[in-house]
Amino acid sequence: MVLEYDGTDFHGWQIQPDRPTVQGVLEGALATILGDHVRLDAAGRTDAGVHARGQVAAFSTERPVDCTRLQRGLNALCGPGIVAQRVGPVGDDFDPRRDASSRLYEYRIRNAPWPSPFTRRHSWHVHRPLDCFAMERAAVALVGQHDFSSFQAADCDAENPTRRVFESEWSTVGEDLVFRIAATAFLRHMVRNVVGTLVQVGSKERTVEDFLGLLAARDRTRAGPTAPPHGLCLVKVEYDRLFAASPS
Amino acid sequence: MVLEYDGTDFHGWQIQPDRPTVQGVLEGALATILGDHVRLDAAGRTDAGVHARGQVAAFSTERPVDCTRLQRGLNALCGPGIVAQRVGPVGDDFDPRRDASSRLYEYRIRNAPWPSPFTRRHSWHVHRPLDCFAMERAAVALVGQHDFSSFQAADCDAENPTRRVFESEWSTVGEDLVFRIAATAFLRHMVRNVVGTLVQVGSKERTVEDFLGLLAARDRTRAGPTAPPHGLCLVKVEYDRLFAASPS
Repeated sequence: MVLEYDGTDFHGWQIQPDRPTVQGVLEGALATILGDHVRLDAAGRTDAGVHARGQVAAFSTERPVDCTRLQRGLNALCGPGIVAQRVGPVGDDFDPRRDASSRLYEYRIRNAPWPSPFTRRHSWHVHRPLDCFAMERAAVALVGQHDFSSFQAADCDAENPTRRVFESEWSTVGEDLVFRIAATAFLRHMVRNVVGTLVQVGSKERTVEDFLGLLAARDRTRAGPTAPPHGLCLVKVEYDRLFAASPS
Repeated sequence: MVLEYDGTDFHGWQIQPDRPTVQGVLEGALATILGDHVRLDAAGRTDAGVHARGQVAAFSTERPVDCTRLQRGLNALCGPGIVAQRVGPVGDDFDPRRDASSRLYEYRIRNAPWPSPFTRRHSWHVHRPLDCFAMERAAVALVGQHDFSSFQAADCDAENPTRRVFESEWSTVGEDLVFRIAATAFLRHMVRNVVGTLVQVGSKERTVEDFLGLLAARDRTRAGPTAPPHGLCLVKVEYDRLFAASPS
């Protein structure tokens, strides 16, 4: 299934006791519909407050499933904050996380003196004027294969912190600045740490050269602050091969 | 002042006892800041659930006002659902409603099988596929001076139902269909009745010719249903002349 959700009211994807999470709500609805407990795996375990327009999730069941009815049931039980935009069968070997070949995230910033009542749930409000050109020069430097240790979460120690970035650029969408970044995969808090540091570049607290030096330094302690979660959205997950359902 | 507000949680602009309204919240904040009760007049009295990105409102006071501090105070007391984007002095003769020479409204429709968690507060979800070409042909026919009796609220009986429409067209913004209509002024429920009828054209319940006949007929009972309020937004109010503040 391809899922959209507004992360505002959830403690992230991953199921937790006594807290509303996206996985928890969906697994609860699946249990009601299927009469069976299943585990729902996702392409990316989004943090508390992070949104998704193209999260991919899958579960296994022995029971026959009518996908149209399943989609209708899920949207009736989980909406309006979570919507399954597509539901379909895949082969038994499909793993939404392991098999994903790239993820695309967007981070939205409202750069204006005052926040907007309309985008406040989905944009980080930065009131000081940002230098878009400097931010773009720093952003494009991320494209390619790099060790992203400088941008991982402080409590995270990935075995292999090298990631390949396919796309990294800013654009203007309506009144917002939108940072798009696509990569094979991301380290924990990587996008938010990159954005927090790019905003330092935009507000002249840090030069583009310093940003490039930071990437090379592989030292988390030198990066900027973590941008808040509500500006971040998992937009798309791509797969290299098709995972056709076996005929049932 | 130029105001943005998310109408979702308000019973419209106009002050009512025991119900949250935009005027009520703003007048309460003004009383706190100024230490004085003032009446706030607006360019358009938006209905319950209707949003604004460019509402214009004004009040009179004998007291000296620091506009920067007033804006900061209003946004601290009224936010995040209401934001004053601009605050400035105008002359004593300024009347935001009477002096307005045109208003621009937008109506958003999400035309997709399922709603979106992100636009559900600001778009009407229409799941049946709409014929955009037919809707556009009907929309452009509204440009010019017409008697809009067919599209006024059933309980409304305007003395002069003639209005001049400057702009009336559809466009695609992201995944939404957006209807923009600018006119000297609007009859009560006029935009929502026009949109409800245009959606009938888009879904082949009514031909473009029938729509044109309806406009000419000046008969409210033949129009389509009133589109829901949450898709509507007052985007801009224009004034022909400047209302400079008198030097104080």
